[in-house]
Amino acid sequence: MTPELQDLFAFLRFPSISTDSRNAGDVRACAGWLIEKLTGMGLETSLRETERHPIVVAKNTPRPDRKTVLIYGHYDVQPVDPLNLWTTPPFEPEIRGGKVWARGSTDNKGQMLAHVLGVEKTLKEKGDLPVNLIFLFEGEEEIGSPNLAPFLRANLDLLKCDVIAVSDTGMVAPGVPTLGYGLRGISCCEVTLRGPARDLHSGLFGGAVANPATALSRLITSLHDEEGRILIDGFYDDVKPLEDWEREMWSKVPGVSDADFLKVTGSPGLHGEAGYTSAERTWARPTAEVNGIGGGYQGEGSKTVLPAEAFAKFSFRLVPNQDPGKIMEQVQAHFDKHCPPGVTLTCEVGHDGKPYHADPKSAFGLAAPRALKAAFHAEPVLIREGGSIPIVQAFREILGADTLLLGLALSDAQIHSPDENFPVENFEAGIRLNQALLEELAK
Amino acid sequence: MTPELQDLFAFLRFPSISTDSRNAGDVRACAGWLIEKLTGMGLETSLRETERHPIVVAKNTPRPDRKTVLIYGHYDVQPVDPLNLWTTPPFEPEIRGGKVWARGSTDNKGQMLAHVLGVEKTLKEKGDLPVNLIFLFEGEEEIGSPNLAPFLRANLDLLKCDVIAVSDTGMVAPGVPTLGYGLRGISCCEVTLRGPARDLHSGLFGGAVANPATALSRLITSLHDEEGRILIDGFYDDVKPLEDWEREMWSKVPGVSDADFLKVTGSPGLHGEAGYTSAERTWARPTAEVNGIGGGYQGEGSKTVLPAEAFAKFSFRLVPNQDPGKIMEQVQAHFDKHCPPGVTLTCEVGHDGKPYHADPKSAFGLAAPRALKAAFHAEPVLIREGGSIPIVQAFREILGADTLLLGLALSDAQIHSPDENFPVENFEAGIRLNQALLEELAK
Repeated sequence: MTPELQDLFAFLRFPSISTDSRNAGDVRACAGWLIEKLTGMGLETSLRETERHPIVVAKNTPRPDRKTVLIYGHYDVQPVDPLNLWTTPPFEPEIRGGKVWARGSTDNKGQMLAHVLGVEKTLKEKGDLPVNLIFLFEGEEEIGSPNLAPFLRANLDLLKCDVIAVSDTGMVAPGVPTLGYGLRGISCCEVTLRGPARDLHSGLFGGAVANPATALSRLITSLHDEEGRILIDGFYDDVKPLEDWEREMWSKVPGVSDADFLKVTGSPGLHGEAGYTSAERTWARPTAEVNGIGGGYQGEGSKTVLPAEAFAKFSFRLVPNQDPGKIMEQVQAHFDKHCPPGVTLTCEVGHDGKPYHADPKSAFGLAAPRALKAAFHAEPVLIREGGSIPIVQAFREILGADTLLLGLALSDAQIHSPDENFPVENFEAGIRLNQALLEELAK
Repeated sequence: MTPELQDLFAFLRFPSISTDSRNAGDVRACAGWLIEKLTGMGLETSLRETERHPIVVAKNTPRPDRKTVLIYGHYDVQPVDPLNLWTTPPFEPEIRGGKVWARGSTDNKGQMLAHVLGVEKTLKEKGDLPVNLIFLFEGEEEIGSPNLAPFLRANLDLLKCDVIAVSDTGMVAPGVPTLGYGLRGISCCEVTLRGPARDLHSGLFGGAVANPATALSRLITSLHDEEGRILIDGFYDDVKPLEDWEREMWSKVPGVSDADFLKVTGSPGLHGEAGYTSAERTWARPTAEVNGIGGGYQGEGSKTVLPAEAFAKFSFRLVPNQDPGKIMEQVQAHFDKHCPPGVTLTCEVGHDGKPYHADPKSAFGLAAPRALKAAFHAEPVLIREGGSIPIVQAFREILGADTLLLGLALSDAQIHSPDENFPVENFEAGIRLNQALLEELAK
């Protein structure tokens, strides 16, 4: 086994599950291992306390004539249950079929350690780096990074940089290097409709009062037309239209055809806003989705009640330049306007995050694909992502820098699931990617 | 406590929930208690097995010169969730404010036991009854009486009778004795819409595939227009229109004004088919109600999934002369026609029952109000009911006898809901009613 894989195995053996307080010591031990590794590479390394899990920062000696690159990653991992579905124990990494199998192998230890080892290799080979480097590794990404934005705000000087690189997203297909230059934002809320004071007998009272489940269905139906276009007043006003070059470019991206979407989702058919491909619908168009719905009798068989209330949990995925706060105001106005008679409506606003969009034609935007090509020996593709990484928008707002999303995750990596895995070749490509990236960004 | 109330408490303590297989033993134990009680009264009593819960039959010694009266009731009860909304445990009966509080207190143990105890009292007082009596008590009413009609068909001689009496319906107001001459029928089904093979990340895939919860909402919305009229093709074709004398008579019935409905249901407003009062909407017009809806994340907070599936449990209340089988065909055709794209639909047909309508001017129809007046010392009213007792229609078709609906349930009895209750005075009036009824029917 190579020394790089030995490092990865050591890193993966820490059960650094951030959400479970019983693992707090493991999270800290994992941070300690990182500190030792980074210090050993000659970087100026420090453990920064937060209210919960520590942040690790490491820097080389800055020189004013060099660009400053911040590389972000997270060393915490998701829980591992159901444990019985793992082929081998989640914190005892093993190589099978050219892949490393362990919790965190892809998300995010494998990807972030590739950057660390790339830097180590460059330092060994050349004695110095072509850029001023800042490693920023947190232990709370899987619980929503509650302490990272405050840390950024409190350490503007320490973290001042020209550009940020993150490897925590996906590749469209094996061997196809992928640069992400956009993310969707999000706005969440939960609506409850209340009718009768309690569940009623549907025989004695059915027909005389509104049924909250029926009313909720009418409210949800009011959100879309038959083709999936959202009917909330003003919802699309700030949507930056897809540009022709993007659509043209995306039409050639492998692994994201409509047929691929059909296969990966296992849906009986695709369905979405008319006039867009599946990739366009998920990467560049906003949505109004029901994440959960409930009301009335949930058990086996039938219970002929007229439910007292019904709820729906909504998330709205947003695209540039939609603003989550403004959208939520429009959503609430829509709900108030379309609430059917005979019920009362309450709307509880949840978390949100702005969409992110960077210019792939900027100097840094052009440097990243060159590095990807050098690392993978293949032509990179440029995409946006449908998911939301709120911290990327926070980087821009607080640190004033754009983020390059250099994902190394494959679609069958099983992140957040049993049997998470990471191909050894992606790990090795990640090390090469880091070396090439710092070279290219320095230009 | 009177011996009668002691009997009622003992009867109510059995958690005889027929729909839950875990309570099968409790249902059987409850039947056993009945057998013992009826045998002790000197009746010829037998436990009759069915495919699920047993039927209890008890008779006095028949004499050819007497009319034969069959009294039907059910000793099974509805489920009790949500348990936390009960003031006191559902199967630990308690008297507060002149009412007995327990699951089944009104529906139907309290009402049926009043008949049993009325017979016991007459036997004690007079040594004999004025009629040939058949008690027929089943344990499957709350699951749609799947085995009762077959039992009737298989026991025509045993159950041959001139008229049937049932106390399983409502009184329009406290102290106002009520004869029901009509019931709504019912037809139930559960629809499941399935989309992706598993819950999907709503960021990575939202917008590209149909959301089963959204699709289900559209399907439910397709059932009604904005004023609550049902849009299923042919649904109203066989509806017997309300007659002028009925509307006139009902307009004078106390306790069923729109204001009463608003108060009793605690709804923020009434809502229903245009052109009808609340009483007319519930007694003589059909409905399409969602009894339960669910799909996706049900827990606290948010989980941004796109659910793999969503379900809705439906019940359709039917009026003369709608046929449940024909209606369910229309319903399924409607679902197939209106199922949104991108999901697959399965519809599981549940229990059903025909609506019932009898002539209140027949000899037995005229005897019943006399008995009601004697028991309650007040003028009775004649109504139809919104609930469904499918077996009443089966009695007519199989046994060839009409059913007198002598309801003792008040509108705030909370049957099928937490805090079900039954006034002690209605229980006592029910005992008197049984004695007067058998006298009047014997004439």
